[in-house]
Amino acid sequence: MFSDENISLSSWIKQRGSEDDIILSSRIRLARNLKELPFPGQSNRKQMDQVVSIIKNVLLEKKIEVAGQSYKFNYIEIKKKTPLQRMMFVEKNLSSLDFAQDGYGKTLFFDQSEELSIMVNEEDHLRIQVLLPGLGIKRAWVIADAIDDLVESKTEYAFSKKWGYLSACPTNLGTGLRASVMVHIPALNLSSNMTRLFEVVGKLGLTVRGIYGEGSESAGNIYQISNQITLGKKEEDIIENLESVIRHVIKQEKNAREKLYKNRPVFIKDKIMRAYGKLKYAYSISTNEAMELLSYVKLGSEMDIIKEKEISPLLLKRLFIIIRPAHLQSLIGEKIDNSARDLKRAELIQTEINRKGGQI
Amino acid sequence: MFSDENISLSSWIKQRGSEDDIILSSRIRLARNLKELPFPGQSNRKQMDQVVSIIKNVLLEKKIEVAGQSYKFNYIEIKKKTPLQRMMFVEKNLSSLDFAQDGYGKTLFFDQSEELSIMVNEEDHLRIQVLLPGLGIKRAWVIADAIDDLVESKTEYAFSKKWGYLSACPTNLGTGLRASVMVHIPALNLSSNMTRLFEVVGKLGLTVRGIYGEGSESAGNIYQISNQITLGKKEEDIIENLESVIRHVIKQEKNAREKLYKNRPVFIKDKIMRAYGKLKYAYSISTNEAMELLSYVKLGSEMDIIKEKEISPLLLKRLFIIIRPAHLQSLIGEKIDNSARDLKRAELIQTEINRKGGQI
Repeated sequence: MFSDENISLSSWIKQRGSEDDIILSSRIRLARNLKELPFPGQSNRKQMDQVVSIIKNVLLEKKIEVAGQSYKFNYIEIKKKTPLQRMMFVEKNLSSLDFAQDGYGKTLFFDQSEELSIMVNEEDHLRIQVLLPGLGIKRAWVIADAIDDLVESKTEYAFSKKWGYLSACPTNLGTGLRASVMVHIPALNLSSNMTRLFEVVGKLGLTVRGIYGEGSESAGNIYQISNQITLGKKEEDIIENLESVIRHVIKQEKNAREKLYKNRPVFIKDKIMRAYGKLKYAYSISTNEAMELLSYVKLGSEMDIIKEKEISPLLLKRLFIIIRPAHLQSLIGEKIDNSARDLKRAELIQTEINRKGGQI
Repeated sequence: MFSDENISLSSWIKQRGSEDDIILSSRIRLARNLKELPFPGQSNRKQMDQVVSIIKNVLLEKKIEVAGQSYKFNYIEIKKKTPLQRMMFVEKNLSSLDFAQDGYGKTLFFDQSEELSIMVNEEDHLRIQVLLPGLGIKRAWVIADAIDDLVESKTEYAFSKKWGYLSACPTNLGTGLRASVMVHIPALNLSSNMTRLFEVVGKLGLTVRGIYGEGSESAGNIYQISNQITLGKKEEDIIENLESVIRHVIKQEKNAREKLYKNRPVFIKDKIMRAYGKLKYAYSISTNEAMELLSYVKLGSEMDIIKEKEISPLLLKRLFIIIRPAHLQSLIGEKIDNSARDLKRAELIQTEINRKGGQI
């Protein structure tokens, strides 16, 4: 009925990680440009091809050793992919929304685990990305730093002593580093401390975004917290700052969960159990509602309110991704419209939840 | 956990009946007063005792043969019962709300199946009642007529050639007959044809009431349809008229179900399946919400949208009654407050639904 062959999930989705009751993933992104070539926005086709060619030479030759791990790379040209295939890269956070639009030269390199990837000819020549499950931001930095060194050893980056790494957009000047962590904070959201949290996070030089990054909406109580400032700070300090704020958020979310359980036990148990009942029985369900219900089921499972063993953390993380439109559409195979997809989404969730002793 | 010993359900709840996908029960009530005794509202205690004594003589002597069936009667004095016990009689439609209030002389006679009962010293001396499952209004009339004859053979009714049977309230003058049928019409309610239906029913001399009769609210898409006029018509005509309207309502409800299935399949399947999911998983649930969810589950079961075999028609009818406050409170045993009762209600429903191969 649903064909798993049409989708491939990244290791950040398929593997557990540290603090993964609250932290879904950690991501490092480095914006880099090659010296003596104009930024992609000003490049002609030949120049864009040149960037792709340089990266092919670095990554495709053999197995790459980075930070003690070996990676084998593959690549795809965005323009050769269907909109559906491109959206799947967005849904698993391997591609930005912009990068997934049709356009010459855009090429996505990624290793088999999809832990390490490079968007070539996005806004910058290179967007090096490392994506790990749970709270792994330091490890992600180590990997990103190593692949960055590897690329730099084979070519020359646009770099200024005064400004650091140059980038198409001034907000990325300096380190070119965006470190971000995807947090799942339903209890904080329910306790309506979000505005206050956003303020505090803002004062600490961080920003809160939706699930697909800048300009995207939050869904299922999931937010991306990342550094705002890339200039004038050392990478290690940016990461240290982010991690310490994230540890604070984890603590706050855990407190909020305890308080909910203590002060409003009926409210929270009822909310969670009804979410579970709806997920198991709804006949039609939108992406946003599914994200929200999955969020409460995850919370319920972690608070030991839902006892069923088959609702494993990995099944939930998988569901958080595969119920999104492009993944769902790929699992279905044939093209169907939005409202028909809502029925299939309900069916998929029920199939996955009821599949006992499955591989998840 | 829940003690069945504290409740006793009437046969109209425990047995199936004709057209019982839409018709829950049929009821005949006859208002009768004894000659040469003032109406209960004007009676002193001695006079009230006298009425009780007359009925005891008629009903308690031995097994009573009525319309080819034998009945064994029991009685309770309302003032000796707790408010909880009285409310249970209301919830299973054996007592009016008024009759369940504390007051001298009020005595409820009922046979073991609770199919036949007499409220003594309600507004009138006697309120003879017959309550049958499904559409059984004609049979109920035969039984009521026979017990009426039996009582009349042992005493003398207040009767006027001009007005017929006299009653405390002029609306009951004449035949003293109220014939009513409890209908479950969720599809009509969803298609919002209710106002129109009420109008039509009104023009035909009938009236629509809530689940506990006059002045009570509807719940779970359940309504009582009964004759308005008691004077100037033959009993058989009143019943014939009611039954033909009810058959019309049944047809309308069936049409509405077919139309829903044909024109709004996603809406109705989703509504039903979510109702089922909530019933199976909610942690807290009010009487009114439970009635509404049960209504959709009954609809879903009858429309073959819910396939589970354990949701039998009789389990649903049982649940419609035992989730009501007094029955639930009795099943729990110890006294608890409203909000604690909402948790127990959710638990009770889940226990009953999950009890496979049970006695229902």
